[in-house]
Amino acid sequence: MALRDEMKALAISAQQASRLLANLSSEVKNQLLYRMANAIEAAEQSLQLANQKDLRLAEQNGMVAAMLDRLTLTSERITGMADGLREVAALPDPVGEITRMWLRPNGIKVGRQRIPLGVIGIIYESRPNVTADAAGLCLKSGNAVILRGGSEALNSNRAIGIILRQVLTDMELPQAALQVVVTPDRNAVRELLQLEEQIDLIIPRGGEGLIRFVTKNSRIPVIKHYKGVCHTYVDEHADLKMAEDICLNAKVQRPGVCNALETLLIHRDIAAEFLPLIAKSMGESGVELRGCVGARLIIPALIPATEEDWQAEYLDLILAVRIVDSYEQAREHIENYGSLHTEVIVTNDYHLSQRFLQEINSSVVMVNASSRFSDGNQLGLGAEIGISTTKLHSFGPMGLEDLTTRKFVVLGDGQIRE
Amino acid sequence: MALRDEMKALAISAQQASRLLANLSSEVKNQLLYRMANAIEAAEQSLQLANQKDLRLAEQNGMVAAMLDRLTLTSERITGMADGLREVAALPDPVGEITRMWLRPNGIKVGRQRIPLGVIGIIYESRPNVTADAAGLCLKSGNAVILRGGSEALNSNRAIGIILRQVLTDMELPQAALQVVVTPDRNAVRELLQLEEQIDLIIPRGGEGLIRFVTKNSRIPVIKHYKGVCHTYVDEHADLKMAEDICLNAKVQRPGVCNALETLLIHRDIAAEFLPLIAKSMGESGVELRGCVGARLIIPALIPATEEDWQAEYLDLILAVRIVDSYEQAREHIENYGSLHTEVIVTNDYHLSQRFLQEINSSVVMVNASSRFSDGNQLGLGAEIGISTTKLHSFGPMGLEDLTTRKFVVLGDGQIRE
Repeated sequence: MALRDEMKALAISAQQASRLLANLSSEVKNQLLYRMANAIEAAEQSLQLANQKDLRLAEQNGMVAAMLDRLTLTSERITGMADGLREVAALPDPVGEITRMWLRPNGIKVGRQRIPLGVIGIIYESRPNVTADAAGLCLKSGNAVILRGGSEALNSNRAIGIILRQVLTDMELPQAALQVVVTPDRNAVRELLQLEEQIDLIIPRGGEGLIRFVTKNSRIPVIKHYKGVCHTYVDEHADLKMAEDICLNAKVQRPGVCNALETLLIHRDIAAEFLPLIAKSMGESGVELRGCVGARLIIPALIPATEEDWQAEYLDLILAVRIVDSYEQAREHIENYGSLHTEVIVTNDYHLSQRFLQEINSSVVMVNASSRFSDGNQLGLGAEIGISTTKLHSFGPMGLEDLTTRKFVVLGDGQIRE
Repeated sequence: MALRDEMKALAISAQQASRLLANLSSEVKNQLLYRMANAIEAAEQSLQLANQKDLRLAEQNGMVAAMLDRLTLTSERITGMADGLREVAALPDPVGEITRMWLRPNGIKVGRQRIPLGVIGIIYESRPNVTADAAGLCLKSGNAVILRGGSEALNSNRAIGIILRQVLTDMELPQAALQVVVTPDRNAVRELLQLEEQIDLIIPRGGEGLIRFVTKNSRIPVIKHYKGVCHTYVDEHADLKMAEDICLNAKVQRPGVCNALETLLIHRDIAAEFLPLIAKSMGESGVELRGCVGARLIIPALIPATEEDWQAEYLDLILAVRIVDSYEQAREHIENYGSLHTEVIVTNDYHLSQRFLQEINSSVVMVNASSRFSDGNQLGLGAEIGISTTKLHSFGPMGLEDLTTRKFVVLGDGQIRE
């Protein structure tokens, strides 16, 4: 069968399965996830055998160590996949919730009820655990899911898919509810992205190249996250010890992730005191600082920051530092260079805290807390399918609820329109 | 300036204006809309002069009467535009609402707050009143708006734009908040659709050709509505008089709109009684019926329905009729042929009414009411910017709230991540 027809047939069967999934009870969906978790753990050996095939090929192809690590399914990671499925099973089911209901003057009652989106396509790169994590979130929210991982994880993804699909069959549910696209043909993604009649949402997870490719080629709505250039603004009325703790945590606790601090903005009135303080503790943690002219007046040894530094998502132990004249200048800097991901103010000025929350329209805005909390689990969503830095449908960390939409339900008693 | 640069400059200025708009008080936004309404009414003569230019050109180009009618700005329609702006001003402001807030175990409070989307592009066809209607809804929800109407309404749209923008200037607000693209170059839309860094949402309003063009060419998220193939299922336990009233209203009260009834499904056990009844009243209203084999066994004179009839959005006094064996068969028909717009069941069976509401996942599902209520005003949204038959972001009639998104706000007291 031609690739185009193959992808279309797969998507049509997913759409058919999605109608059944939409009406499964929470109990059945939870049981499905618990049984999938058990099946993953029981299959540890065969999963590792499949994974070793991928690892051997990757080594032959000269994959770098960090990537090889991501690709590896250790015993711990396999348990992690199973536990992830159990955690999602334990979350409240968003489907069916009637978020509001009101009465119209003519007597009809109008409500809005959560329903699954339908069919969700996930396009991702090397980590094979995404296969189980994304499947769990999609199925729990009543959606069918089409998974397309990276070619380097093909054997691992196929093996995970076989295990999870067997559980569907055991429970007399259609295997089409969960499909793992394992054809090595790189055009498979391109074909999937054309199927707007069958697939309701595409979530790309991976590097900027993947995300730009998907956005450019998709006729299906895409929820995406380009990068996180997160700012922390230390105001003149900040508790400097608190500011130090927050900035240090945001930068060094895990520097390689999108909610790590990238640019520190400091009010000029406390810069002479705060900058040496934070420079010292950052230095002790191995962080390289790059400063604006004002910062280098205070610490001449700082590496000069350039225009590129204000735009940089370092994902590394590097921090850009700028001294600002005012809150307004900090806000303007964030508007010009921010990525709409997460911004933090550290201040004890109540009025200013409220202005910051109000005026900064990034997906997450925080007062007196580390930007590292910008994460679905940390914010209390239970689990995270991704982070959106575009505003349609979802903005910020996305949980189960973001995999649903709302229909209108109308209860009448014979009303007609005048 | 090249068209590409011109569109980009326009979108950048809209984005800058959107930051200011996002923080305007409801009072200022309402005053803006009331003053725009007054300005529109005061400018009736000049609007009609501009409109006459469009009408003369359209006549020379041989535009058909129905289209000429849509294009005409009568005195009544100008008052209608002004009243529309006043109605939107009187609606509650969705911006700023904190829809939920919760406490995390570590003491941070997490909430979700409504903010404007940013910059909204509206691509529409001949009706010039869309210029004022869409501008009102976008501005009230704190968004900047870029309006691109049809070339046949260019002079009318330009005139409306000048009037509305003058009010922005009078109130010391940036004109860039409301931009009317009047270049006759047809590539303007294509260029706008590439500006994903500046424009947050595109809403096309018009025929299927326009909508398909926009979807195919846009890198910006699009909320769209292809067509409305609305079904009413008359169950064996329906009150037949109620069913007759509802079906008649849904078909003939305004047949040319997307929420009009297109296919009637009748349970076989009441078909022999109900079909002659509804055929008679439809006939008296000038409706042509096209029936399945079962329907023609009851009324042999019916025109046979073909596969195309089940897919048809007639927008006319034509109705497809099918006799079904069961609720399940009706549901299957809706799943196969529906457009996810609006479906109605007429029944007095409580259990079945609940199954229908639960199992049919069109954007609006109704019990015992006319599908003609599937409209933002009728459902109580206050005003309507469009109807979405895709599920991302909005599903069904869209009001002011659908022109917003939600950011996370986090209130901490020095928390850092372990």
